[in-house]
Amino acid sequence: MEKQGIRQRVNGFKAWAVAAGLKKDDAPDLALIFSERRAVAAGVFTTNKVKAAPVIVSQERINRKYARAILANAGCANACTGRQGLEAARGTTDLVARHLNIPAEEILVASTGVIGQLPNMQLFEKALPGLVDKLSPDGIPHVARAIMTTDSFPKMVFYPEKAGGTAYGILGIAKGAGMIMPNMATMLSFILTDIQIDHESLRSALGDCVKSTFNRITVDGDTSTNDTVFVLANGMAGNQSPTERDLAGFREGLQFVMGELARMIVKDGEGATKVIRIEVKGAHSASDAENAARAVANSSLVKTAFYGQDPNWGRIMAGLGRAGIRMQEEEVDIWIDEVQIVGGGLGKGFEAEQKAAQKMTNREFSVVIDLHQGLFQDAIITCDLTHDYVSINAHYRT
Amino acid sequence: MEKQGIRQRVNGFKAWAVAAGLKKDDAPDLALIFSERRAVAAGVFTTNKVKAAPVIVSQERINRKYARAILANAGCANACTGRQGLEAARGTTDLVARHLNIPAEEILVASTGVIGQLPNMQLFEKALPGLVDKLSPDGIPHVARAIMTTDSFPKMVFYPEKAGGTAYGILGIAKGAGMIMPNMATMLSFILTDIQIDHESLRSALGDCVKSTFNRITVDGDTSTNDTVFVLANGMAGNQSPTERDLAGFREGLQFVMGELARMIVKDGEGATKVIRIEVKGAHSASDAENAARAVANSSLVKTAFYGQDPNWGRIMAGLGRAGIRMQEEEVDIWIDEVQIVGGGLGKGFEAEQKAAQKMTNREFSVVIDLHQGLFQDAIITCDLTHDYVSINAHYRT
Repeated sequence: MEKQGIRQRVNGFKAWAVAAGLKKDDAPDLALIFSERRAVAAGVFTTNKVKAAPVIVSQERINRKYARAILANAGCANACTGRQGLEAARGTTDLVARHLNIPAEEILVASTGVIGQLPNMQLFEKALPGLVDKLSPDGIPHVARAIMTTDSFPKMVFYPEKAGGTAYGILGIAKGAGMIMPNMATMLSFILTDIQIDHESLRSALGDCVKSTFNRITVDGDTSTNDTVFVLANGMAGNQSPTERDLAGFREGLQFVMGELARMIVKDGEGATKVIRIEVKGAHSASDAENAARAVANSSLVKTAFYGQDPNWGRIMAGLGRAGIRMQEEEVDIWIDEVQIVGGGLGKGFEAEQKAAQKMTNREFSVVIDLHQGLFQDAIITCDLTHDYVSINAHYRT
Repeated sequence: MEKQGIRQRVNGFKAWAVAAGLKKDDAPDLALIFSERRAVAAGVFTTNKVKAAPVIVSQERINRKYARAILANAGCANACTGRQGLEAARGTTDLVARHLNIPAEEILVASTGVIGQLPNMQLFEKALPGLVDKLSPDGIPHVARAIMTTDSFPKMVFYPEKAGGTAYGILGIAKGAGMIMPNMATMLSFILTDIQIDHESLRSALGDCVKSTFNRITVDGDTSTNDTVFVLANGMAGNQSPTERDLAGFREGLQFVMGELARMIVKDGEGATKVIRIEVKGAHSASDAENAARAVANSSLVKTAFYGQDPNWGRIMAGLGRAGIRMQEEEVDIWIDEVQIVGGGLGKGFEAEQKAAQKMTNREFSVVIDLHQGLFQDAIITCDLTHDYVSINAHYRT
């Protein structure tokens, strides 16, 4: 049950994953998470106007505030599939409902994979009995693996906490890799906890944490049609109704789990070799800080320079200049980690650039930009743009 | 003087280019265009808030409405160079003014190359006498070559026209390649004509043509600090004051020249193997049409799919969905050239995709999107995102 000191289970949750044949390579692609008790549930979803069928179905169901299970698959996004796609998404949960003897309305659903293909219902029908039979408290790592598409490693984070002296856990998994510039949520992430908590506290904690974690990363500036984050709290830790302090502890844990998962998603961005934190401070407004960081984090020229370990600060300046923010070129300072490469809008010279290039050989580094226009700051985590990104995406479907 | 049937000179303009040592490889990098008569002049410049010194200097000077010369260099953008950069930009034109015996205020200046380095004035001083001596009516092609950076071919277009029975020509040159998503102009383009025309007609023709040509292309979504378009009309064709009809003819010619140059810039986009016209129709508003076309044209996922010749329409749908436009997924139709791949938001099946993939093997093709939301349309010309784009930009400075 415990591997390498990381806990991989939470009281009252069972899970498993099987190879249903939705992926082309016989890898596990169909996953189920089941809560022994009805769990308080909250979710956030893509802001893309083109929403996948499972997003539409789950958005309806999450309004009930409770859920018993999450059915997830890779290999088929069930997006741009119209009325038939919606019927298929509901149909798969009907099958699960029958096997588990729970209402279909309490089953959330999430899909990832190629857009524009209907899921093959026969594959679901054939695989589901075996999947339900194998549900196990140790099954979450299998789910983390099954929802991978172009991800190169599974993403799982555990955080132990106490509420009123009672121990509980927060276990999160996620998949990422491509089409990542979440505008409200990110690809897929499921977070399970056994804390007893009311729906409003859970919903607001999720909303706040999404803003500072999944909504602050970018791989390629594209927002998926399927982005989904679910958090399920089944109350099986048996804590008393949480105090303000307990809630603060829970938020801190949730923030940690989601923040780590977000960082893992960037680290595993398609073709990425580096994780870069773009930090903007001294902005005139909160939106200026965010827009400046996003303009730099999404610039293809900046991202290829990161790949080349080239402290090409001119591209960063050009990115800031088109961000639509209040700025004075001659007041901008830029650092790579603690090495200043721009002071007052001007380069700090060859030696500074050499030192910065050295920092850029690391797998993770920061770009810190001080605009000197005000008191607002923000940060976006991005990755480099590499040959492998092009290889992966030029031939993804073939 | 005439090569391959394309005229490469315009009455009264002389030009030449030399290797001043600003580029690393001994290639021509310093160019001068000189008009025997003072020419009516108009210009459009980058909207990037970080503006290169030559942009700032030329913006001041273009307000005088007349110019005698354009000094252009590659190898050094003279951007992010502060007060010293401005002094250098003015200083180089002072040198030219002395050699040509004309006012420095009538010399426009444009630079392209690496951001953040000051131009080496000694190189200018050494090269200018030889450059001025060699000025020739046949020198424009040399200028087109000298302003190239990562461009793989020089870009020149000629258009012959008549005004009131008098023949005149419009000769345009441009450089492009990277940092191309002009927001007001594009990298560098100089357009020379011997028509006699008033300043207001010239200025408004330039402004209108820029909107539908250079402002409708994208290579990588980045807007340069140095984007500049100049048009100089020296009146040496000797036509009478142009009539409305003559002006319409001139606009048509200017539109042709700038449109062809813009298309050449995309064709020669860094690493590009394909030119793709993204056409959006049936949009609810003009801005919806433009935003939809730009979202698709700038999507890294769409551009890599073009490279892979993969009619991955799901990525196009996802791009539309995050464009912030009015749309109904189930009303979207998409074609690759004349092959419909999406009807009513749904894929048209394997056979249609195979036919579309065949179209995508061509060097140029169109994506036509009908949103069925209204009467507005727009088009953006883009290129694919390739391994070579990454190679070129990861190691541009090294």
